[in-house]
Amino acid sequence: MTDLYFDFLCPYAWRGVELAAALRAGGERFRLRHYSLVEGNHPGNASELTWRLTEQPHAEGSAAQQGSLRAFVASHAAAAQGEEGHWAFTLALYRAVHEAKQPLEEATIMAAAETAGLDLAAFERARADNDARRAELRAELDAAREVGVFGTPTFVLPTGEAAYYRFETLTRDPATAREWWTLYRTVLTSEAEIGTIKRAKNRPPRKGA
Amino acid sequence: MTDLYFDFLCPYAWRGVELAAALRAGGERFRLRHYSLVEGNHPGNASELTWRLTEQPHAEGSAAQQGSLRAFVASHAAAAQGEEGHWAFTLALYRAVHEAKQPLEEATIMAAAETAGLDLAAFERARADNDARRAELRAELDAAREVGVFGTPTFVLPTGEAAYYRFETLTRDPATAREWWTLYRTVLTSEAEIGTIKRAKNRPPRKGA
Repeated sequence: MTDLYFDFLCPYAWRGVELAAALRAGGERFRLRHYSLVEGNHPGNASELTWRLTEQPHAEGSAAQQGSLRAFVASHAAAAQGEEGHWAFTLALYRAVHEAKQPLEEATIMAAAETAGLDLAAFERARADNDARRAELRAELDAAREVGVFGTPTFVLPTGEAAYYRFETLTRDPATAREWWTLYRTVLTSEAEIGTIKRAKNRPPRKGA
Repeated sequence: MTDLYFDFLCPYAWRGVELAAALRAGGERFRLRHYSLVEGNHPGNASELTWRLTEQPHAEGSAAQQGSLRAFVASHAAAAQGEEGHWAFTLALYRAVHEAKQPLEEATIMAAAETAGLDLAAFERARADNDARRAELRAELDAAREVGVFGTPTFVLPTGEAAYYRFETLTRDPATAREWWTLYRTVLTSEAEIGTIKRAKNRPPRKGA
């Protein structure tokens, strides 16, 4: 099983989740895991961990902070309804935010839960147990820190290799997803021991190239 | 022709130059070009360009600054003796510094010129025309800035794609070099429009993996 670290704030993580969803259709297995960009990039955490997302009040901080915390808690509540429900909720919320351009806030989260076909009463009860959901989230953010995740999406292969994989094109086609996934794994397992391939600043990938 | 940006300070650029040298044996064409890490990473250049390597006195600044400026000027002097002489000098100096662990300073540079079979009198004359060599260097550093090079080695493909390519394993085997080069080009030209593949911080490539 491959771990897939994501943050609902990130449009590249959205592409990564869609890629994984397309690969699941072909039998590849992924575990959805959370990584927080606002925590990872927080200036207070530059040398040591002093600012934790999971210790912030729900109604304080930037829109990105409040939205991502709320979405992560909801994601853990969705996970309580099983793997398929979690995937359906994750995809529905990503599409609402990054495709339909809805704000990452309460109404969007509830609509995603409905789209995903979750048991809404159970979802609400799971969200209301805020301490438990935050504890689950904290454990995942700790796991991400141990791997050294710094951006999303980051995949951790069953064999231990792990890397950030940023690409522009969204695909839901299983054959295309398979090709891009094979390319990524080939880079990570090459005997060249590749650490980084990163575009020069003024030569981003060409749209429609 | 592919442009290959390098800095003699950088052990990853050494691997890149060796890779290109192995590919040249198979007919692939590369142009050696300079990029300065001390200039690119200088705190004074964070928002705009205020500190230029080419404007620094030869005997001032850190060992990295003095050594890289001296090596770049020598590299331009070697280039004046033609493409093959430039490659021979570049490889000889890289191997002296990163394989034999010699310091990047005058004696090492002269020994590399001798190893490369350069006309030493002509090499000395070309180096002595310091203003001309610095002007050549400045033009290359400007070209690198236009591409948005931020580290070495960076390759700029004939079709315009450009990316930093960092890998751990040195190869001089043409077939292996061809495989790693094909992988890099596949990433850069994939319809996924890949911007970055970068290992998680605590999961570097495994030595001997």
